[in-house]
Amino acid sequence: MRVLGIDPGLRRTGFGVIDADGMRLRYVASGTIVVPPALTLPERLKVILDNLRQVARDTQPDVAALEIVFLNTNPASTLLLGQARGAALCALADSQLAVHEYTALQIKKAVVGTGRAAKEQVQMMVQRLLSLDGVPAPDSADALACAICHAHVGPLQARLSGLAGASSPLGSGRARVRRGRLVI
Amino acid sequence: MRVLGIDPGLRRTGFGVIDADGMRLRYVASGTIVVPPALTLPERLKVILDNLRQVARDTQPDVAALEIVFLNTNPASTLLLGQARGAALCALADSQLAVHEYTALQIKKAVVGTGRAAKEQVQMMVQRLLSLDGVPAPDSADALACAICHAHVGPLQARLSGLAGASSPLGSGRARVRRGRLVI
Repeated sequence: MRVLGIDPGLRRTGFGVIDADGMRLRYVASGTIVVPPALTLPERLKVILDNLRQVARDTQPDVAALEIVFLNTNPASTLLLGQARGAALCALADSQLAVHEYTALQIKKAVVGTGRAAKEQVQMMVQRLLSLDGVPAPDSADALACAICHAHVGPLQARLSGLAGASSPLGSGRARVRRGRLVI
Repeated sequence: MRVLGIDPGLRRTGFGVIDADGMRLRYVASGTIVVPPALTLPERLKVILDNLRQVARDTQPDVAALEIVFLNTNPASTLLLGQARGAALCALADSQLAVHEYTALQIKKAVVGTGRAAKEQVQMMVQRLLSLDGVPAPDSADALACAICHAHVGPLQARLSGLAGASSPLGSGRARVRRGRLVI
C-alpha cells in the first residue's frame, strides 16, 4: 500500500509518500509546495491544486491521508486554511484517491507512541521509522507522519468503518467509532 | 462579456451566468448544486468541483465573480465554508477563469442601490434587471447578483486595478482602492 500524506497550508503545503507492507515502511518521496505569497488567492489555490495533482501522478499512491486541522481562533486565518485544504482535497479527489483524516493526537500516538510528543520528537521518529539520512523539513515531516499514521491505523480503521461506511470523520454525518463503539 | 457568479456553500452552491454589454444585461443560466449531505467531505468537495467545471464548460464565461464571505463565529463552520469556497475557486482556476471578489455591501449597492437592502429586495431586483418571469431561488439569486455586480463594477475596477495589478482583495497583499485612492 502506497500512502500519500498531506499537510495543507496556503503558504506551504507539505507532502510525503511512503510504501507500507504490514509494519514495514519505506520512504518514497516528500517535499513542500511553496506558494508565492504575491499571487492572488485563486492563483495560490491553483498552485496547490496543480502541484498536488502532479505529485499524485508522479508517485501513484493508493490512498491519501490528511491531518484534521487545528481550528485557529482567528476566523480569517481559519477561512484561508479551509480554502487551502479545499484545494488539497480537490487535487486528491481529481486523482481518484480515497482520503482518510486523522487528528494530531492520533498521528502523534501512531508515530511517537504518545499524544503529548513535541514537534521535534515527531520529526526524529519519522527519520528513524523511514531510515532517512537526515531530519526531514517540518512540512514534509508532518505529511510523512500522517502517512505513517494511516499505514499503522488505517487497516484497523478500515475494518471498523467497513461496518459504517465512514471514511472521513469531518463533514460526514455518518457513523463513527467512539470509545470502541459505533456512534450514529 | 459573459460573467459567471458563484455563491459557494458546502450544502448548496449557487451559480448564475449573465451576458453584459455595457449596462445591458441578459440572463443566460442559473441553478443550485445541491450536495448530498451523506457524502464524506472529500466527496462533497468533488461534487462542487465537478459540477462547477461542467457549468463553466457548458456556458463558456469570460470571467467569474464571487462574494467575499461572511466570517462565521463558529470556527468549524468557517473551516467547512472555506473548504467549499476552495473547491469552487479550484473549479474556476481549472476553467482558466479570472476571479473577482466583492463584498456583500458592494453587491447590494450594485444591484439595489443601497448596502442595507434585504435579501428579498436583492432577489426582486435580480428578477427585474434580468427580466425574469419569476423570482429566482435564493442561491441562484445571490450568484446572479454577484455576476451583476461584476458587470457594473468590474469594468471600472479593471481600469483602476490595471494600475496596481490587483484582481482579488482577499489573500493578496497587493494594492487596492480605498475611498477612491490606491492603497498599497
